[in-house]
Amino acid sequence: MLAMLQYSELVERALKEDIGTGDLSTMIIPANHLGEAKIYAKEHGILCGLSIAEMVFQKVDSRIRVESYVNDGDRISPGTLVMKVIGPLAGILQAERTAINFMQHLSGISSMTKRLVDIVSDLGVKIVDTRKTMPGMRSLQKYAVRVGGGHNHRFGLYDAVMLKDNHHAVVGGLDIAISRVKEVVGHMVKIEVECETLDQVQDALENGVDVIMLDNMSLEDMGVAVRVINNKAIIEASGGISEENIREVAETGVDILSVGKLTHSVMAVDFSMVVDEMKPSMQKHITFTEKI
Amino acid sequence: MLAMLQYSELVERALKEDIGTGDLSTMIIPANHLGEAKIYAKEHGILCGLSIAEMVFQKVDSRIRVESYVNDGDRISPGTLVMKVIGPLAGILQAERTAINFMQHLSGISSMTKRLVDIVSDLGVKIVDTRKTMPGMRSLQKYAVRVGGGHNHRFGLYDAVMLKDNHHAVVGGLDIAISRVKEVVGHMVKIEVECETLDQVQDALENGVDVIMLDNMSLEDMGVAVRVINNKAIIEASGGISEENIREVAETGVDILSVGKLTHSVMAVDFSMVVDEMKPSMQKHITFTEKI
Amino acid sequence: MLAMLQYSELVERALKEDIGTGDLSTMIIPANHLGEAKIYAKEHGILCGLSIAEMVFQKVDSRIRVESYVNDGDRISPGTLVMKVIGPLAGILQAERTAINFMQHLSGISSMTKRLVDIVSDLGVKIVDTRKTMPGMRSLQKYAVRVGGGHNHRFGLYDAVMLKDNHHAVVGGLDIAISRVKEVVGHMVKIEVECETLDQVQDALENGVDVIMLDNMSLEDMGVAVRVINNKAIIEASGGISEENIREVAETGVDILSVGKLTHSVMAVDFSMVVDEMKPSMQKHITFTEKI
Amino acid sequence: MLAMLQYSELVERALKEDIGTGDLSTMIIPANHLGEAKIYAKEHGILCGLSIAEMVFQKVDSRIRVESYVNDGDRISPGTLVMKVIGPLAGILQAERTAINFMQHLSGISSMTKRLVDIVSDLGVKIVDTRKTMPGMRSLQKYAVRVGGGHNHRFGLYDAVMLKDNHHAVVGGLDIAISRVKEVVGHMVKIEVECETLDQVQDALENGVDVIMLDNMSLEDMGVAVRVINNKAIIEASGGISEENIREVAETGVDILSVGKLTHSVMAVDFSMVVDEMKPSMQKHITFTEKI
Amino acid sequence: MLAMLQYSELVERALKEDIGTGDLSTMIIPANHLGEAKIYAKEHGILCGLSIAEMVFQKVDSRIRVESYVNDGDRISPGTLVMKVIGPLAGILQAERTAINFMQHLSGISSMTKRLVDIVSDLGVKIVDTRKTMPGMRSLQKYAVRVGGGHNHRFGLYDAVMLKDNHHAVVGGLDIAISRVKEVVGHMVKIEVECETLDQVQDALENGVDVIMLDNMSLEDMGVAVRVINNKAIIEASGGISEENIREVAETGVDILSVGKLTHSVMAVDFSMVVDEMKPSMQKHITFTEKI
Amino acid sequence: MLAMLQYSELVERALKEDIGTGDLSTMIIPANHLGEAKIYAKEHGILCGLSIAEMVFQKVDSRIRVESYVNDGDRISPGTLVMKVIGPLAGILQAERTAINFMQHLSGISSMTKRLVDIVSDLGVKIVDTRKTMPGMRSLQKYAVRVGGGHNHRFGLYDAVMLKDNHHAVVGGLDIAISRVKEVVGHMVKIEVECETLDQVQDALENGVDVIMLDNMSLEDMGVAVRVINNKAIIEASGGISEENIREVAETGVDILSVGKLTHSVMAVDFSMVVDEMKPSMQKHITFTEKI
Repeated sequence: MLAMLQYSELVERALKEDIGTGDLSTMIIPANHLGEAKIYAKEHGILCGLSIAEMVFQKVDSRIRVESYVNDGDRISPGTLVMKVIGPLAGILQAERTAINFMQHLSGISSMTKRLVDIVSDLGVKIVDTRKTMPGMRSLQKYAVRVGGGHNHRFGLYDAVMLKDNHHAVVGGLDIAISRVKEVVGHMVKIEVECETLDQVQDALENGVDVIMLDNMSLEDMGVAVRVINNKAIIEASGGISEENIREVAETGVDILSVGKLTHSVMAVDFSMVVDEMKPSMQKHITFTEKI
Repeated sequence: MLAMLQYSELVERALKEDIGTGDLSTMIIPANHLGEAKIYAKEHGILCGLSIAEMVFQKVDSRIRVESYVNDGDRISPGTLVMKVIGPLAGILQAERTAINFMQHLSGISSMTKRLVDIVSDLGVKIVDTRKTMPGMRSLQKYAVRVGGGHNHRFGLYDAVMLKDNHHAVVGGLDIAISRVKEVVGHMVKIEVECETLDQVQDALENGVDVIMLDNMSLEDMGVAVRVINNKAIIEASGGISEENIREVAETGVDILSVGKLTHSVMAVDFSMVVDEMKPSMQKHITFTEKI
Repeated sequence: MLAMLQYSELVERALKEDIGTGDLSTMIIPANHLGEAKIYAKEHGILCGLSIAEMVFQKVDSRIRVESYVNDGDRISPGTLVMKVIGPLAGILQAERTAINFMQHLSGISSMTKRLVDIVSDLGVKIVDTRKTMPGMRSLQKYAVRVGGGHNHRFGLYDAVMLKDNHHAVVGGLDIAISRVKEVVGHMVKIEVECETLDQVQDALENGVDVIMLDNMSLEDMGVAVRVINNKAIIEASGGISEENIREVAETGVDILSVGKLTHSVMAVDFSMVVDEMKPSMQKHITFTEKI
Repeated sequence: MLAMLQYSELVERALKEDIGTGDLSTMIIPANHLGEAKIYAKEHGILCGLSIAEMVFQKVDSRIRVESYVNDGDRISPGTLVMKVIGPLAGILQAERTAINFMQHLSGISSMTKRLVDIVSDLGVKIVDTRKTMPGMRSLQKYAVRVGGGHNHRFGLYDAVMLKDNHHAVVGGLDIAISRVKEVVGHMVKIEVECETLDQVQDALENGVDVIMLDNMSLEDMGVAVRVINNKAIIEASGGISEENIREVAETGVDILSVGKLTHSVMAVDFSMVVDEMKPSMQKHITFTEKI
Repeated sequence: MLAMLQYSELVERALKEDIGTGDLSTMIIPANHLGEAKIYAKEHGILCGLSIAEMVFQKVDSRIRVESYVNDGDRISPGTLVMKVIGPLAGILQAERTAINFMQHLSGISSMTKRLVDIVSDLGVKIVDTRKTMPGMRSLQKYAVRVGGGHNHRFGLYDAVMLKDNHHAVVGGLDIAISRVKEVVGHMVKIEVECETLDQVQDALENGVDVIMLDNMSLEDMGVAVRVINNKAIIEASGGISEENIREVAETGVDILSVGKLTHSVMAVDFSMVVDEMKPSMQKHITFTEKI
Repeated sequence: MLAMLQYSELVERALKEDIGTGDLSTMIIPANHLGEAKIYAKEHGILCGLSIAEMVFQKVDSRIRVESYVNDGDRISPGTLVMKVIGPLAGILQAERTAINFMQHLSGISSMTKRLVDIVSDLGVKIVDTRKTMPGMRSLQKYAVRVGGGHNHRFGLYDAVMLKDNHHAVVGGLDIAISRVKEVVGHMVKIEVECETLDQVQDALENGVDVIMLDNMSLEDMGVAVRVINNKAIIEASGGISEENIREVAETGVDILSVGKLTHSVMAVDFSMVVDEMKPSMQKHITFTEKI
C-alpha cells in the first residue's frame, strides 16, 4: 500500500543530513561486529512508519534485517516492542536516529488522526488533511493520516481545483471563477469552492461545483448550509477544528472535516532503541552475501 | 547570516511537491495580471523564515518582489503585517501555501525557544536543540532555534562525538569507548559522553572529555554532578525538559539544556495572505525585465 | 499559463544530452562574436513551444535575447518568422537543435489536436489525451494538447481513478472494484470505469461513478450507452479514434473523445534557423551585464 | 549490449511522472496479491525495449520477475507473446503503462528503420539517425535505430564536428571553418562538412575532411558529387529521405543516408497487457526474499 | 569503517563521465562472455581505495565479483596482486579505468601520508590534512589520509571554527573575532586561531581557544610559542611542511602538523589490469541471480 | 570558449562539500559588510580557472563582482595580481578556498602542459591527455590541458574506439577486434589500436585504422614503426613520457604524445587571497539590486 519508490530519495536525504561525511562515534566499533537492537514505544498511540524505518536501516547497510511485531495502524503503548533490528551494529547505530525521527513524527500524525476519528466515528463524516504540511514530507504525512483512519484532501495544486476568496477577488467574483475554471480543466478534475457566507454557498450551488467548503462558519450557519445544499454537493467544514469542537461541527451534518493541525502541529510519539550485543551462538545464524 | 545556497534545493522540492504539473486553480488568472498581497500574523510569537518565504516567491516567478516590515527574531502578534508581495498574482497565489508552510513551522520553533530562553535568561545557561528533527529540515530548524535565542547542538553524526549507553555497551564500557574514540578522531572534534549515573560521571571525568551529558537524572543527582565536575567539563542536562521544569533544572548549575521538542513537536504559528488587486495607477510603477 | 519551474530540469537534461562536454564545432567562433538568427516554420500547423525554446537559448547563455512574432496556438505556414534570437552566436548555435527539437514535437501535437478539434467543433465534445506519452515529456505534451484546443485527461495514476478490465479481474468484478475504491480515496478524486460491454455500463451506472469509458465499442453500442447513461455520468469514448472516424464517434453523443496518438505517434513540424551575422552598427545596441 | 546504468534515471523519472504520489486505483489490491500478466504485440514490427520494460517493472517492485520469449530485433505480429510478468499484481499494474510507453516508441523506431534498411539492403549503404530526437531519449532512440539494423550518426555536439552553412557564414567561409577546427580539436575527432553545392563539395574535398554531407541535393548533383569525391571522403546524403525515395538516393552511390524522421516522427507500435490472476497452486512456487 | 552511502553518487558520476552514452569498444564483446581480470600494483606504496574500486565494478554490473588479497593500509610493491575481478568481461573492461583512477589517487595520498608519518613516528605528533582538496573528493581524500596513518583536520567550514588573518582584519582584531564567535557557536564546536606572530599567540591564549595555529613561523618562534602556550591549547604548525623539513618542525614540540600537499599535489600510484579469459571449466562455478 | 552549463553542478557540489550547513567562522561578520579581496599568484606557471573561480564566488552570493587582470593561458609569477573580488565579505571568505582549490589544480595542469609543449614546440607533435583523470573533474582538466597548449584525447569510452591488449585477448586477436568494431560503430567514430610490437603495428595497418598507438615501445621500435606506417595512420606514442624523455620520443617522428601525469599527478600552483576592508568612501559605489 505504501509505494516505496517515491520515498527512497527522502530517506537518502535524511540519512545524508545526519551522517554527512561519516559517523565519528561509531568509528570505535569494528565493521564486522554484529548484534541486535530492539525499538520500543514509550508512549500510547497509533504506530506509523514501519516500512520507512526499515528502509532507513537497509539504506545504511543492506545486510541489516528488520523483524516487526506490529503493523502500521496498530495501537502501541509504553513498552510495546516495535521491531528488532539485526546486523552490523555500527550501521544500526548510524541509522537509529533517522529511523526513529520518521516513526515518531508519522506516529504522531496517526495518533492524533485516530483520536479525532474516534470522536465522530458514529456520524459518517470523514476527517481529512490539508496542504499545511512539512516541506518535503507531504506524501508521507498523508499516508500517516490514512493509517490513522483519516482520508486525504487534494495532494497539491495540481490534482484538484480549490477556488478561494483570493481567487474570487482577483477575477471579479465566485461565479466568474467557477465558469472560467470549468472551461479549462479536464473532465477528471473535481472543483471545490471556499465559501465564507451563505450567499456564497447559494452562488456556488447554482454554478454547479463538486464540493463546497464552509470556511470558518458558525455552527448555526453550517446547519443552514447543509439544508440548502441538500446533497447537491459534498460539504467540507474547515477552520479551527480540534478535539474540543469536532463533534459539534460533525453534528451539523457536513460530510468532510479538514484539520490543518493533523500535519502542521504534530506531537511526536516517543520511541527508544536498546542494543543487545549478539551472543556468539547467535552470530553463526547470520550470513551475509556481500561485505561492506 | 542565513546562507541561501543550502536551502535552494529544499525550497524547490517543497514547491514541486505542491505545484507538481501545474496549479489548476490559477489557470483562470491571466499571466500578466499584477497585484499585491499582504501576509499577516494571526498569533503571538517570534517571527522566523522571512528569507525562505521570499525565496519561495522568487522561485515561482523571479519578477515577484517582497517587502518586509519585520525581521527574523522580531515579536509578532495577531494583525502584524509581515510582508507585502508584489507582482504577477498567479505566481503569488501558487507560492502562498509553500511560503507560509515554512514560516509557520520555523516561527513555531523560534517562539517555543524564546519562551524557554526567557524563563532562564538570568541563569547563564544555554538552550540547545537535538538531532530529533524533521527529515530534510534540520539545518533550517536549527537556524530557527538560533533566531529564538537558543544555540545549536551538533548538526549530525559527523561534526562531534557523542558516546551513548549503546556505544558503551557495544565496546565494553564508557572508558574503553572514550579512549578508542580519542585515537581516531581529529584534534578539531569535541567529545561528549552521556551519563546516566554519578559513577559514569566520575568515569567520564577521569577519562577526560569535553562535555558530560546528564541523561534523565534527578535534580538532586544533577546538583551532585555539577559539584563533582567542577568546571572540568561542560555539563549538559537532557531528558524531558519543558516549560514546567526548565527553571528547576537550570538552577542545578548545569551549562546547557537540550530540548528535543524544540524541533520534534512544533506548534505552528498561524499566518494568512490577503490579495489586493493592484489599482491601475500602481501598475505603471512595476517594470519587468523579462516575461515568463 | 505555462509554469516554467517544472520544465527547467527537462530543458537542462536535453541540453546536456546534446552539448555534453562541449560543442566541438563552435570552438571556431569567438565567445564575443554577436549576431542574430531567425527561426522560420517550414510546414503548416499550430505553433507550440515558444517559451520552452526561449528557455533553451537562455540556459545556454543568459545574454541571449529572444523576440517572438507569434504566440503558442497561432497558425504557422512555410516561411512564417517564428522568432529572432539575438546574442553571442556560439551559444545560439549550441542551443539551436535542442530548441527546435522541443518546438517541432510540441507543434506536431498542437497541430494534430487542432485538426481533430476542428472536425467536431460543432458537436460539443472535448478531445482529450491519454497516458500514452513520451517518457519525461508528459506534462509538456499535455500543454501542447491544450494549446491545440484539446483538454487533458488525468496526468498520471495519482490524480484520478481509472478502473480497467485488469482491475476488475483481479478483485473479482467491476462492482467490487468500485465499492472498494470509494472507501479509500478522498473526496476530491474522480472515478472513471472502463466498460467493454453494455452490461458493464449498466453495472458502473448503478454503482455510481463520475465517468464511464466506452472502450472500443461499436458506434451502435455507443449510441445505446449514451441513452442508457442519460447524463448520469460523463461519457468518454476511447480506442482507435482518428481523423477518419472521429466525427462518427462524436455524433453518438459521447462527451469526451480520448486519442492516444495525440502524444504517442506525433509527426514533427519542421523549422529551420538561419544566422545573420550582426552588422557592426547593430553591435553597439547590445549591452551585457556580465561576461560568460 | 544495452548498458543499463545510463537508463536508470530515465526510467525512474518516467515512473515518477506516472505514479507520482501513488497509484490510487491499485489501492484496492492487497500488497501480497500475486499474479501473472502477459504482454502481447498488437501490430507488425520489430521489437525493441525489452530490457527497459523489465527495468521498469523491477524498479516498481524488485520482486517482479520477467520472462521474455523474444529478443530485441525480432519480428513481431499481432498476437505475439512478448513477455510474462510475474509477481505482486499491484506493482505490475502500476508499471504497465510506463513499460509499454517505452516499448511502443522504441519498437516504432526499430520497425521504421528496418523497413528502410530492407529497401536498400543490397546497395551497401548505411541508414543513420540524426540529432532530431526526443528530449531526454536520444541515447535510447539511437539504440533502437541499431536494433532496427541502422547505424548511429554522432550522439551530440561533443563527439564529432559538423560544420554547417551557419558555421561557414559566421567565420567567413567553409575553408576557414575547416582549417580553424582542425587546429583546435583532438586527433580522435572526425570532421564532417555540410555542402549544398558542388562547389562546396570541391572546397571541402580540397581542405581535407572525413565526411562530406550532401544536403538536399538533387539526385543528379549527388551522382556528380560521388564521382568527384571518388572515395576520398565518406559521403552522407541528407534531407527529406523517406520510404518513397530512399532507393533512388542510395543508388547514387553515397555511403550514408541520414533520416530525421527515424526519431522525430515515430509511429508507436501497439502492445497490450492482460492479467491472469495466479492460481493458488502457482503461488507456492514464488518465493520472495524481502517484503515491500 | 568506510561508509559507502556517501560515495555512491561520486562513483556514479565518475562512471557516467567515462562511459557516457556507452562504451563503443566493448560492443565487440558478447554480453554473456565471462572472464577474470587481475589488478596488479606497479609501484611501491600504501594501498587505498579497495572498497571504492569494488563499488565501481558492481555499479557497472552487479554480477561482477571482486576478491581482494590485501587491505587498505597494506604496503604494496611492483607486482603485488591487489584484486581479482570475476564476471562479464564487457562490464569489467568498462569499469577498469574508473576503478583504477580512484585507487591510484587514493593510494598516492596514503603513500605520501605514510612517508611523513614514519619520519616523525617517535615524536608524538599527528599529521593532518587541510581543506586544499580536489573538488568533490574531499571526504574520500581524508579517508586516504587516515589510511596512511594521518588524522583529519576539520572537514569544512561547518564543523569547526578557524579564525584567520582575514577574519581578524575584517572585524578589527583577533580578540574581537574570538569573543564574537564564542557568543554564536554551540558548545560542541572547537575554535582554532591562526597566528603569525608571538604577540598573536599571546592574544589567542589569553582569550581562550582550543587550538592555536602557528602559521609559517620560523622554527625558533615555534619553539618559543610551544613554551608560552605550555599545554593550555593544542598547537598546530602549518605552512610549507615537506619530507625535507617535517622532522625539524615536529621537534619544536608542536602537537599537530598540517600538510596541504597531502591532498592538493598527489603523485598517483600506478596499477594495471590484465584480463584472463575464463577457461570453460571455470565458467560453471559462476552463477548469476539475474541477467542484465 | 568554456561552456559554463556543464560546470555549474560541479561548482555547487564543491561549495556544498566545503560550506555544508553553513560557515561557522563568518557568523561574526555582518551580512552587509562590504569589502574587496585580491587574489595573488605565489608561484610561476600558466593561469587556468578564472571563469570557474568567478562562478564559485557568484554561486555563494550573486552580488559578488570579480575583476580579472589576466586571462586563462597567461604566464603568472609570484606576486601577479590575478583578480579582485568585490562585495559582501562574508560570502567572499566562504568562497575563497573553493575558488582557489579549482584554480590551483587547473593552473597546475596548464603549467605542466605548457612546459612539455615548449620542449617539443619545433617538432610538430601534439601533446594530449589521457583518461587517467580525477573523478568528476575530467572535462575541466581537459580544458586546462588545452589552455596549456595541449590537445585532448577522447573524452571517454563513448566518443572514440580504443582497442587495447585486453580487447584483443578477449575476442581472439587484434584483427578480429578491428573488423568487429567496424561493423557496429557509426561513420563518425575514429578507431585507434594499441600496439606493443611491430607485428601488431603491421596488423593494425593492414586492417585499416585511424590511429595506431605505440605502447611503451623502445625509441628504436618507434622509429621503425613511423617508417612502416608512413602516414597511413596517425601515430600516438604512449607510456612513461616525462620532461626528461619527451624530446627523444618526439624526435622519432610520431604525431601525438599522450601523457597521463598531466592529469593524474598534478602539482598545484599556489595562490593566496588578502582582504582589504572597503573604505567607507568606496562603499557608496556598490549598489545591490537584491538583499540576501
